[in-house]
Amino acid sequence: MSAGAIEASRRLRIAEIFGPTIQGEGALIGEPTVFVRAGGCDYRCVWCDSLHAVESAYRESWVPMETAEVWGEVERLSGSVPLTVSLSGGNPAIQNFGPLIAMGKAKGYRFACETQGSIAQGWFAALDLLVLSPKPPSSGERVDWEGFDACLAAAKDARAVLKIVVFDDTDYAWAQGVAARYPDLTLYLQPGNAQVDPDVAVDLQALSDRLLWLVEKVTQDRWFRPRVLPQLHVFLWGNKRGV
Amino acid sequence: MSAGAIEASRRLRIAEIFGPTIQGEGALIGEPTVFVRAGGCDYRCVWCDSLHAVESAYRESWVPMETAEVWGEVERLSGSVPLTVSLSGGNPAIQNFGPLIAMGKAKGYRFACETQGSIAQGWFAALDLLVLSPKPPSSGERVDWEGFDACLAAAKDARAVLKIVVFDDTDYAWAQGVAARYPDLTLYLQPGNAQVDPDVAVDLQALSDRLLWLVEKVTQDRWFRPRVLPQLHVFLWGNKRGV
Repeated sequence: MSAGAIEASRRLRIAEIFGPTIQGEGALIGEPTVFVRAGGCDYRCVWCDSLHAVESAYRESWVPMETAEVWGEVERLSGSVPLTVSLSGGNPAIQNFGPLIAMGKAKGYRFACETQGSIAQGWFAALDLLVLSPKPPSSGERVDWEGFDACLAAAKDARAVLKIVVFDDTDYAWAQGVAARYPDLTLYLQPGNAQVDPDVAVDLQALSDRLLWLVEKVTQDRWFRPRVLPQLHVFLWGNKRGV
Repeated sequence: MSAGAIEASRRLRIAEIFGPTIQGEGALIGEPTVFVRAGGCDYRCVWCDSLHAVESAYRESWVPMETAEVWGEVERLSGSVPLTVSLSGGNPAIQNFGPLIAMGKAKGYRFACETQGSIAQGWFAALDLLVLSPKPPSSGERVDWEGFDACLAAAKDARAVLKIVVFDDTDYAWAQGVAARYPDLTLYLQPGNAQVDPDVAVDLQALSDRLLWLVEKVTQDRWFRPRVLPQLHVFLWGNKRGV
C-alpha cells in the first residue's frame, strides 16, 4: 500500500455534520444530538430517505475529512459542551469511526451509531448505544443474519437495540419474526415515510395516520413488546436536510 | 372508624381505565400501556388537560371501585398479556394503589405512576418508574419542595425521572433551576398544550411549532441535558379522551 493510500484511509467520507438538534427517532428520541452523517452505503433501500449519503452520484459531495477535522466541527457546533453524537449515514460501519469516538469520549461526549447491521466493526464496543436497524422486505434488500449477529457480537458491552421501519403488513410480520429471533433486545417500531422529497411539504395528517395505523396493529395484536415511535424530525422540519 | 368507612377506604376512585394504547409522553413514550386514571387532585393547574379527573364537579363520574375490580378491567383490556400500566390522574398519590401494583406485578405487569410530587406514598417503591412532574409557574400552583423530596425518598430503588411542562420563558427558566436542584435525575421537557378542548380539532402545525420553539431554546442555550418530547397522543388523537 502506498503512503498516499494509507493517508487516504485515515480520512472519513462525510456527507454532512449538523446540529445540535434533537434525535428524531428510536431509543434516544428527543435527545440533544450532533449528527455526523457518513457518506456511502452497502445497501440501496428503495425508500431511502438519505440518498444524498448513499447514492454514488452524490459522492463528490462527501467531503474527505481527517478525524480531527470532524471532531473540530462537532466541538464547534456544540460549543464544546458534551452531548450525544450520532453516527449515521449511509452506513457508518463501512468506515473507521474508532478514533473519532476515542477523541470525543475523552471530552465527555457520548456516541450512538445507527447501522443496518451488515458490517461489524470493533469500534461498536466503544459506543454508548448501537442501533441495529435491519431493513424489512419493502426495502428491496435482504438481511444477511450472519453479518447481523457479528454486529451484535462486536457491540460487546455497548447497549444494542433494534429499530425496524414498517411500511406495510409484510414488513410488520417480518418485524415480528426478527423480534422473536432477538428476545432480549429492546425493540422500536417506526412507520415508514414514503414522502422523502425535501422540496415537498410534509402532510402532517398523513404522518399522524401512519403512526396511528402502526399503533393500532400492535395494540390489536396485543404485541406489547415494541415501542412505537414516529420520526419527530419529519414532524418538525419535513424532509429538510441538516436539522 | 366504622366498618363502612374501612370498606370505603379500600376502594379507589377511578375517572377512567383505557387502553391498550401507547404512552404519549416522557420516559416511556411509545410504550404500549393501559392507563388507570385516578379521580381527584390536590392541585388545580390553570391549563390542566385532565379536568374530568380533577374538578370536584366531575366527582360523580369517578367510579368507586374495589382494587380487584380495577385489576379485572386492566386484565380484560390487555387480554391478560402483561404490559405497562400507567397510574395517572388527577393525582394518583392521594389514593392507595399499593394493592393494585402487588396484584399486577404478581402477573408480570409493570407499573409507572405520574404525579406532581406533592404527596409521598410507600407504594412508590414498588413502581418500575415514578415520573415526578413538578408544576411550573404558569400552572398557578406552587411546589412544596419538602413534599417533593419526600416523594423522591419514598421511591427508594424505583427509577424516578423528572418531567416538566414548559409554556413560556418563565417556565423554562424555572425548569433550569429545578434541573440544577436534581442533577442526577433524567429530565424530560414537554411543550405546554394550550388547546385542551376535546371538541376542538387540534392544529397539528401549532403543535409542531411549539415543540420547535422548545427544541430551539435548549439547543441555542446549549442545554443538552433534557430530552425534549411532544405529547404524541395529542398528535394522534387530539384531546379525545380514552386513547
